[in-house]
Amino acid sequence: MQLSDLISDIGRRARVASRSLSNLSTETKNAILRAMADELLVREPAILEANAKDVAGATDRGLAPAAVDRLKLTSARLRAMAEGVRHVAGLPDPVNEVLDAWTRPNGIRISKVRKPIGVIGIIYESRPNVTSDAAVLCIKTGNAVILRGGSESLHSNLAIAEAMQAGGVRANLPADSIQLIPVTDRDAVRMMAQMDEFIDVLVPRGGKSLIEAVVSNARMPVIKHYDGVCHIYVDETADVEMAARILINAKCQRPGVCNSAECLLVHRDIAEAFFKTAVPLLAAQGVELRADEESFKQLAALEYPSLARATDEDYKTEYLALILSVRVVPELGAAIDHVEHYGSHHSDAIVTEDAINAERFLNEVDSATVYWNASTRFTDGAEFGFGAEIGISTDKLHARGPMALPELTTYRYLIRGEGQIRE
Amino acid sequence: MQLSDLISDIGRRARVASRSLSNLSTETKNAILRAMADELLVREPAILEANAKDVAGATDRGLAPAAVDRLKLTSARLRAMAEGVRHVAGLPDPVNEVLDAWTRPNGIRISKVRKPIGVIGIIYESRPNVTSDAAVLCIKTGNAVILRGGSESLHSNLAIAEAMQAGGVRANLPADSIQLIPVTDRDAVRMMAQMDEFIDVLVPRGGKSLIEAVVSNARMPVIKHYDGVCHIYVDETADVEMAARILINAKCQRPGVCNSAECLLVHRDIAEAFFKTAVPLLAAQGVELRADEESFKQLAALEYPSLARATDEDYKTEYLALILSVRVVPELGAAIDHVEHYGSHHSDAIVTEDAINAERFLNEVDSATVYWNASTRFTDGAEFGFGAEIGISTDKLHARGPMALPELTTYRYLIRGEGQIRE
Repeated sequence: MQLSDLISDIGRRARVASRSLSNLSTETKNAILRAMADELLVREPAILEANAKDVAGATDRGLAPAAVDRLKLTSARLRAMAEGVRHVAGLPDPVNEVLDAWTRPNGIRISKVRKPIGVIGIIYESRPNVTSDAAVLCIKTGNAVILRGGSESLHSNLAIAEAMQAGGVRANLPADSIQLIPVTDRDAVRMMAQMDEFIDVLVPRGGKSLIEAVVSNARMPVIKHYDGVCHIYVDETADVEMAARILINAKCQRPGVCNSAECLLVHRDIAEAFFKTAVPLLAAQGVELRADEESFKQLAALEYPSLARATDEDYKTEYLALILSVRVVPELGAAIDHVEHYGSHHSDAIVTEDAINAERFLNEVDSATVYWNASTRFTDGAEFGFGAEIGISTDKLHARGPMALPELTTYRYLIRGEGQIRE
Repeated sequence: MQLSDLISDIGRRARVASRSLSNLSTETKNAILRAMADELLVREPAILEANAKDVAGATDRGLAPAAVDRLKLTSARLRAMAEGVRHVAGLPDPVNEVLDAWTRPNGIRISKVRKPIGVIGIIYESRPNVTSDAAVLCIKTGNAVILRGGSESLHSNLAIAEAMQAGGVRANLPADSIQLIPVTDRDAVRMMAQMDEFIDVLVPRGGKSLIEAVVSNARMPVIKHYDGVCHIYVDETADVEMAARILINAKCQRPGVCNSAECLLVHRDIAEAFFKTAVPLLAAQGVELRADEESFKQLAALEYPSLARATDEDYKTEYLALILSVRVVPELGAAIDHVEHYGSHHSDAIVTEDAINAERFLNEVDSATVYWNASTRFTDGAEFGFGAEIGISTDKLHARGPMALPELTTYRYLIRGEGQIRE
């Protein structure tokens, strides 16, 4: 079979599945999810065997040990995966929630009701647990899902997807509700992106070139999970200790994720005091600083051990590492301008004791999540209390910021009348 | 200046304008709208003169008299346009509405707040009043707007956009908040569609080839205002008089619009009785029927004056004229299958006295608006009580069905803390 026929066949099957799926009761869907979790455990030997192939392949290709470890499944990790599936079964089902209802003067009753989107395409490059995490959220919300994972975890992903589909079918999951594209080259992504007849939305999670392949080809809506060039702005009246604590948390707690800080902006009048407090903490964490001229002088005077000049490119860069760009600004407006110009509109924070400045920052910084006196690391479905997340949307439409079950639904207007016609 | 430079310059200016616009108070925005309305009236001579050029051009090119009439502005039509702008000034402002707010166990307070999207591109082909209708809704919601209208109304559109921008500026509208692309060839559309750096969403309203040019080129989200292949399904237990009244309204009241019916589905067991009632009414309206084999026989027996066989293509066609495709179905499920297969997921109605059948239709037909015992013609912002509409979205994400002011906004999460960090 040609690749294009394979992909469109998968799309056609998903569309058929989605029609049955969309009308399953919450009880049936939850039973399906529990059966999926059971099957993941039953198939432990097969899944770990498939995973061993991926791990061997990755080792052979010289993947970094940390990356190989992220790829690796163990009995404990598989149990955690099944537990994650069970957890979603326990969450409220957003489908059929009545969002609004009203009666018009002519007597027609209008209700706006949450409904499944239809078919969701998830394109990802990361660890095999995304296969189950993403699939289960789609099924919970009555959507068919087409998964396209990365090449390094193909065997694991196939084994996990097959287990979920097979387990689900025992509990009345429609055939083809969960399908994984068994081909990982970029052509498959481009073909998915053209298939707006069968896929209602694409959710790409990954690096720049993957996102670009989706965005430049997609005919359907795309909800990108893209980069986070996040800022911490230390305002003139900041509590210096608090600001240092927030900065260290935002930069160092988990530098490889999108909600970690990449740039520090400091008001000129507090820079000296702030650097005095923050420099030993940053140095202790081994953070490399890339500084503008003004902060470079001050940091050099404090003998910061790992210091370089920042380029314009630095300020646009998501390091995902223990590197921080630094800039001194003359006033709040300049900080906001910097964030708007260089940032990625993901998560940005102001640390200040001045409520007026804080509210101005909250109002004028156009990012998915904007913080006053808290770490950007809170941009996360679990931290927001959403129970589960499909990721962090860096788009503005339909879903912005942490994206949970309700964001995997659309709505319909249902109108009930007694024969009304338009005059 | 090259076309591409012109378009990207317009985009860059719109982005700058959007930053100031997004923080204007409701009072300021309403004052701006009223100043725009005033200026439209002040500039009546210039606008009518520009319009006369378009009308002359259209007449020279042999445009149909009805189309020339739609293009034509009069003193009364201009006053109605200004009145429309004033009406929007009086509507509630959705910006800064708090959609949700909660406190997490760690004390951070999260609020989800409506905010402007940024820059909205409106691409349309229709009458010059769309220029003011669309611009005013964007400004009301704090968005900059880039308009690209059709070639036949270019002079009128430019004059209207200039009047609104100039009037607005007197009341503190930021420069470049309303820009109209002065070039109407398709290349300009393709360039807009590539400019995701400056345009946050495109709203195309128009025919197939315009929509296709946008969808196949767009890098940003698109909210299509596309076709309506709408159905009336007359169920076994329908009140025949009611069903005929709804059908005539949905088909004939204004056949050229997207929420008018294009296809009649009739349950086999009621077909004879229904046709007996409906046929004289349809004939009186001069409706041409395109029937499947079963209905063709019955309609021929009733000597329907304008009758043809329906092809598969007919069932997919948005006639926008007094033509109706007809099909007899053996049961409700077959009606739903037909709607799902041939329809455009816009507006579909069931007429029935059976509540269980009605609810099944409402649940299983995946259209933006689904009706029980009411005309599809109610799919309209004003009929829904929305006060104003930018159009009818035929997409599922972000906005579906009648699209009003709230759908021209996004949201941000604003988080206020006291120094919280993630553990």
